[in-house]
Amino acid sequence: MTNSVPVIFDEIHAAAARLRDVAVRTPLLNSPALDARLDARIFVKAENLQRIGAFKFRGAYNFLSRLSAAKRERGVVAYSSGNHAQGVAYAARLLGIAATIVMPEDAPTVKLEGARRWGAAIRPYDRKTESREAIAQELASATGATLVRPFDDPDIIVGQGTVGLELAEQLEEAGQDADLLLVPCGGGGLLAGVSTAMRELSPRTRIFGVEPENYDDHRRSLKAGRRVRIKGAGFTRCDALAATIPGEITWPINQRNVNGFVMVSEAEVGMAISFAARHLKLVLEPGGAVALAAILREKLPVRGKTVAIVASGGNIDSELFQEYLSGHPQ
Amino acid sequence: MTNSVPVIFDEIHAAAARLRDVAVRTPLLNSPALDARLDARIFVKAENLQRIGAFKFRGAYNFLSRLSAAKRERGVVAYSSGNHAQGVAYAARLLGIAATIVMPEDAPTVKLEGARRWGAAIRPYDRKTESREAIAQELASATGATLVRPFDDPDIIVGQGTVGLELAEQLEEAGQDADLLLVPCGGGGLLAGVSTAMRELSPRTRIFGVEPENYDDHRRSLKAGRRVRIKGAGFTRCDALAATIPGEITWPINQRNVNGFVMVSEAEVGMAISFAARHLKLVLEPGGAVALAAILREKLPVRGKTVAIVASGGNIDSELFQEYLSGHPQ
Repeated sequence: MTNSVPVIFDEIHAAAARLRDVAVRTPLLNSPALDARLDARIFVKAENLQRIGAFKFRGAYNFLSRLSAAKRERGVVAYSSGNHAQGVAYAARLLGIAATIVMPEDAPTVKLEGARRWGAAIRPYDRKTESREAIAQELASATGATLVRPFDDPDIIVGQGTVGLELAEQLEEAGQDADLLLVPCGGGGLLAGVSTAMRELSPRTRIFGVEPENYDDHRRSLKAGRRVRIKGAGFTRCDALAATIPGEITWPINQRNVNGFVMVSEAEVGMAISFAARHLKLVLEPGGAVALAAILREKLPVRGKTVAIVASGGNIDSELFQEYLSGHPQ
Repeated sequence: MTNSVPVIFDEIHAAAARLRDVAVRTPLLNSPALDARLDARIFVKAENLQRIGAFKFRGAYNFLSRLSAAKRERGVVAYSSGNHAQGVAYAARLLGIAATIVMPEDAPTVKLEGARRWGAAIRPYDRKTESREAIAQELASATGATLVRPFDDPDIIVGQGTVGLELAEQLEEAGQDADLLLVPCGGGGLLAGVSTAMRELSPRTRIFGVEPENYDDHRRSLKAGRRVRIKGAGFTRCDALAATIPGEITWPINQRNVNGFVMVSEAEVGMAISFAARHLKLVLEPGGAVALAAILREKLPVRGKTVAIVASGGNIDSELFQEYLSGHPQ
């Protein structure tokens, strides 16, 4: 055990116990076609097959299951472009807690429907004129509900960390030892949790976060040695990764654990989504496909190496999915 | 152990040992959205995530790994619309055996490319004017190569049976006991293998084969009490299931093990493919989606029940996949 992260690592084990028989132990997939193409051994942690189609269920359930009876009674509030929304909504349903979710009006339909399916009340907002944090905070203050932050919270981080725990176990079961690990990075909650588990269980693995090129706040922050906010960030289809500044709690963890960050373009993400459907038989959403995009375009040297990647979600609207499939025939 | 199938069941265990660390132990997936829709507990054995994107690798590898050194030296020949082709090609590559595959000129591109990727020689034929069995037999006679039948062979059947072995193990691990099992049925090899394993390990489970409505030779055969050949069979997108008569070896096994057969239409298959992409985040091919189609349309009563289905493959051409997605928006 390292000196730097003992508490969090122990808490990932505790979260794994809470999630047992509730979350899916998602498969670690290997594709001969992908290995042959990159001359490497690639292992894909398929969190698109997680409940609600993304890893976010893990953190949400871990957080909600730790609330006192009195707090459960008063309900929860969350803000999210969609996967955290669905994660909170489904976890709340399982635990019998009322949930209100603040979601952008232009969130992917599949994510809006997903949150509604589990009985959450949706409070839409306009991303250009309203602050989702302010709306959520106001709702929480008015009703006594607990705010469930999407990433910058210890219980959320350790919940997501169970992805890393399983990944390390599954690599060991497969007799593999990863040289590299690539993880999608938005606010940094998944990366903080997964990197904490991997630093402990596989210290020699080099860990990289992957960001959309218009949202490279982590890359810039690592360079600057402090949290940098991106101003006037451009467009991205990776709605799940469109954070403009690293989290306050996640950042010091990632700064310590992560070897670097790489960026992928929107076109590279589209190509990866098409590749995943054709060769891995998996449906990925843009934010869930960035790590695959990074290795397909060899943003890091992968040839001859053992590489693990996290495919973090699969909640993509059908029309956009079709657009990527037809736009990238090979 | 029953009196009727002791040897085959033992051989499934032997095949599982051969396939360990070679085939994927594909996940048994459960989707809250699917369960909520059908008011049932549905478990999906995702063989589209198997090597080469379909269960066929299991039987092919089991067969090839049992060939003598002398036979391996002379190579193998197979005929197939595609998944058996890829399974034989990839297994042959792993074992260092030369493979020639007789494939229809109009096989899905993804399957032709898949077979070529692993170094197999492809002999195309015209489905309307040529007999693939005759061409394959001729090639085998001329070269001394071993013919690898797609389903009507004990080593193939027990290889596919490992799907059933894993399914029974995974249901037990999940603390589940299946009331119903639905398995895609073309020649009947997968069904014969899986049903043999399940009859042994979960005798109370009712087992059904699922056929495309134009290829209901098994349904008719069960009714007639003997193998019935369909004449002038119509069109189907389920190229993997387009057999017109049950196998000689598979039929007595299926006749004994299977409770019945259900049919699905082409439109129902398209709807299931779209559903799988949206809710399960899986890419399925038409033949691989028939069991899902059958439960989505409730061809059997599933409400309140625990139901296992096999999703047998995911090798679909992108254009057809897009057509299904756009044709079935919900």
